[in-house]
Amino acid sequence: MADLTDLPRRSVWHGWGDPAHVKPLPTGGWPLLKFLGGVEPAARETPPVALEDVRLPAVRLTDSARAALAAVVGDEHVSTEHLDRVEHAGGKSYPDLHRLRTGDGSRAPDAVVFPGTSREVSELLAACVEHEVAVVPFGGGTSVVGGVDPVRGRFAAVISLDLRRLNAVTRVDPVSQTAVVQAGARGPEAEAVFQRYDLTLGHFPQSYQQATIGGYLVTRSAGQASSGYGRFEENVVSVTMATPTGDVVLGGRTPANQTAAGPKLLDVVIGSEGLLGVVTEATVQLARRPVIEHQETWALRDTETGFAAFRGLAQELGHGIMPDVSRLSDHNETTTVMAQAGIPGMAGMGLMRARGWRDPALAVFQFEAEDKATLKFRRKRLAALLKRHGAVRMTDSIAEHWMGGRFRGPYQRDHLMDRGVFVETVETATTWDNLQHLHDRVQAAIAESMGRVWVQCHISHLGDGGASLYYTVLASGESDPIAQWERVKTAAGTAMIEAGGTITHHHAVGTDHRRWIGTEIGDGGIRILRAIKAELDPTGILNPGKLLPEEGDRG
Amino acid sequence: MADLTDLPRRSVWHGWGDPAHVKPLPTGGWPLLKFLGGVEPAARETPPVALEDVRLPAVRLTDSARAALAAVVGDEHVSTEHLDRVEHAGGKSYPDLHRLRTGDGSRAPDAVVFPGTSREVSELLAACVEHEVAVVPFGGGTSVVGGVDPVRGRFAAVISLDLRRLNAVTRVDPVSQTAVVQAGARGPEAEAVFQRYDLTLGHFPQSYQQATIGGYLVTRSAGQASSGYGRFEENVVSVTMATPTGDVVLGGRTPANQTAAGPKLLDVVIGSEGLLGVVTEATVQLARRPVIEHQETWALRDTETGFAAFRGLAQELGHGIMPDVSRLSDHNETTTVMAQAGIPGMAGMGLMRARGWRDPALAVFQFEAEDKATLKFRRKRLAALLKRHGAVRMTDSIAEHWMGGRFRGPYQRDHLMDRGVFVETVETATTWDNLQHLHDRVQAAIAESMGRVWVQCHISHLGDGGASLYYTVLASGESDPIAQWERVKTAAGTAMIEAGGTITHHHAVGTDHRRWIGTEIGDGGIRILRAIKAELDPTGILNPGKLLPEEGDRG
Repeated sequence: MADLTDLPRRSVWHGWGDPAHVKPLPTGGWPLLKFLGGVEPAARETPPVALEDVRLPAVRLTDSARAALAAVVGDEHVSTEHLDRVEHAGGKSYPDLHRLRTGDGSRAPDAVVFPGTSREVSELLAACVEHEVAVVPFGGGTSVVGGVDPVRGRFAAVISLDLRRLNAVTRVDPVSQTAVVQAGARGPEAEAVFQRYDLTLGHFPQSYQQATIGGYLVTRSAGQASSGYGRFEENVVSVTMATPTGDVVLGGRTPANQTAAGPKLLDVVIGSEGLLGVVTEATVQLARRPVIEHQETWALRDTETGFAAFRGLAQELGHGIMPDVSRLSDHNETTTVMAQAGIPGMAGMGLMRARGWRDPALAVFQFEAEDKATLKFRRKRLAALLKRHGAVRMTDSIAEHWMGGRFRGPYQRDHLMDRGVFVETVETATTWDNLQHLHDRVQAAIAESMGRVWVQCHISHLGDGGASLYYTVLASGESDPIAQWERVKTAAGTAMIEAGGTITHHHAVGTDHRRWIGTEIGDGGIRILRAIKAELDPTGILNPGKLLPEEGDRG
Repeated sequence: MADLTDLPRRSVWHGWGDPAHVKPLPTGGWPLLKFLGGVEPAARETPPVALEDVRLPAVRLTDSARAALAAVVGDEHVSTEHLDRVEHAGGKSYPDLHRLRTGDGSRAPDAVVFPGTSREVSELLAACVEHEVAVVPFGGGTSVVGGVDPVRGRFAAVISLDLRRLNAVTRVDPVSQTAVVQAGARGPEAEAVFQRYDLTLGHFPQSYQQATIGGYLVTRSAGQASSGYGRFEENVVSVTMATPTGDVVLGGRTPANQTAAGPKLLDVVIGSEGLLGVVTEATVQLARRPVIEHQETWALRDTETGFAAFRGLAQELGHGIMPDVSRLSDHNETTTVMAQAGIPGMAGMGLMRARGWRDPALAVFQFEAEDKATLKFRRKRLAALLKRHGAVRMTDSIAEHWMGGRFRGPYQRDHLMDRGVFVETVETATTWDNLQHLHDRVQAAIAESMGRVWVQCHISHLGDGGASLYYTVLASGESDPIAQWERVKTAAGTAMIEAGGTITHHHAVGTDHRRWIGTEIGDGGIRILRAIKAELDPTGILNPGKLLPEEGDRG
């Protein structure tokens, strides 16, 4: 877990993270992509424009509005600098990055404001109501669904409210194993404190290095080890949220799910994507930090067999016994994971072919345990179950290789975009009975929308009732990459909804999924959300254009 | 688990259940109660009045309102019969029962309506809006906090909407292990169907035999095995709720907690106590039915040591390894449990005394498992942990005796009320760091409010962050039992809130806890609830006088 407290520098404006971490494809990567999906780099490289060449609109914040913001946080914490505006012009979705890389900064906020206390956040919201300024809360900025795009809605001006100065862990209670954390603390910042107490949040999404506690909370984030530690939402004990109509404080008298005092209103705030208020602080449930980690790799005859085995993991072994991370690659993803694993991967492919498995599915697991006896028992149960499904053990190094690179995937996107390649990830979830159907429908819809394309998928986040599907899509870039993105996004999203899945397992809704939210949560759901929004943010300054459908749309 | 599909006849109007199940105290019970807490039966028995002597107010339903209700469900399903009105005059709280037993039926509804379909429920609500009739949804009627009391609020008439005809399990999916259940199905009715598929809901609160799926849902019920199967709220996949402004359908595309498509709005319905709508159907997550059950009994030096050991169970062993039921009695409850266990109990007390333990704490556990190897492993981990805390193994028969009688407690209340004894249970929960403080404060507050009294407590429903406390209070009856009840209820509730606990772990809010809800969930929480209520039930016909504080109260 050593890598879990490394705090890399904040994301560069034109990519996922520190450009020094961006690595080219391994040897053979390009020929393989061409062979598998006809994916080829553009004739010319397509690097981002120079920072100064990103075109920004004029600042539309009035002098009186700016003065009001500065009166709250100090002039030095209200920025209209070019770099700050560019860095807050979007999140890390493919279209967000594509626009900036090509010099289109038209969505940049008019200013970026950096409050230093919860109270300043409350006061900023009051000032923004008074001056009719839209507010976009900004944590790590890793949204891949447009969640932090500075949409101004009906307002003349829009600011990004960057919470990076609110990054303290203000209390750790080793008895109840809880911690009070400010919303702007990034994953590794918080985890470094927890680990001093031999505790962990156990929340490690792919965005872990950049994303913040507040971001996890308002997007209903799920970490890779959600089978072990639960989703972020399951570990929220209390929350403080500044709203334009006063602070809202919920929870705290009991751990999560230990009260019957009315509806669990924490779940109104969790997943609210900045539309109801700005979360400034949360108390989170921690767990004992495991002292043993163990990865192992197995292969199954095909994806269908793998689905059945994974359902068994969740329903027969269950929480506490099944691995903390379980991930099954469909045969396409199996091909690329094995190729990336080098010689052990090639040997593994050979082994599977020798068995006559034409479309094998790779499974990687991670156990986290406090003692060897428990690990041994859990591994034995896993092995027995997998063997019943005809699985074959592979070298552990494949899983170790995957685990070692688990935060690196998005960096590779930067490299691919430099080479003009289209790359997107989409994710969904459904019940076990519907999983194969959903998998096939989404896969087919993406392929149909794209012509030659490489689509690979894995299943993870196992629960008693179902699991998630996560697709990576690669194709040669077209002349209009935004149109290309729109086409695949529409095809995938429509297929998810029509095939009975959710529009998002853990990426949230943002701008990109809002057209489907009315179908997913129904008129009743939309009415409930709008009623709460009207109560807490009656003027509608908070994060316009996200989550809720536009008035008049279905829902 | 044989007893889990027995469906006893519906509760008698003047007590918990079938009077044939009411047993007197075991031999020595009265002397023991007198010795321990000065609890003595009244000079004369205090049986309930005859049914025909319960005084009911005149029916205030207008002819046109009655006709409108009958037009929806048929005349035979709109009842103004004496027995129906008496049976729906309240739930099963001490004051509810005391009033009826003494002939006070003043709270009875004007009519009881029995819809046969979800659609009829929707149509009834529309009719009630039109005719200005308040509606009290009624499931098993086991509320001990006034949750089904027919409060009419500002309306001239009030009906009880009894869901008993909506009692079908309409679908079981053995792949996803889910079931669609109508709201009025009682626990054993639903469980009998689940068990045909070797599945179980695993939800066994003390009210299990009478309470319904809809009741579990709207009260955020917690079953005795919540450490194993989770609270009811954790197993809700989707819900259909009729409201005066249209049906609301939420969830269903994924299992619980497998989507990030906005806030988890299921949690607005769960715990809403009939104020937002009438839940007519829910999809619930089931689990594989265990084939092995094993109980065991341990004793710890004192309650404080027990608290530490139980915290270890939750935090070190955790979900999946720790027992599915863990229950620690404080030294008062230990005394009565051991006394009830007969000779093995007496032997156990002797054993503890021989060790010099003056205030021992009894711990009973239940494991549910699919195979012997897992049970063995879990038991070994339990034993190792308990021994580190100096625990001593007792005969399993004590735990088996407790488990065998786990639904019987409330029947005993009927016997005690027949003898004029005051009896009440109150419950709370908090974080581990605050548990001892809360325990002591509530215990002291009850004692101070009552003079001579017997108060015993157990800790259960363990989670990573905390646990619940459940008190049983016994005292000689005073001349005004309602005033006596009010005094202890006020003392206990105020102590819970002041000492940082929740006003209710699983009994819900109803009429009896609403004065504290504003303090517990804050102004923000009250505003959110009122906004949703105004959206879904703008005329306020649904369950007046429950959950929300009266307008003008704090909150």
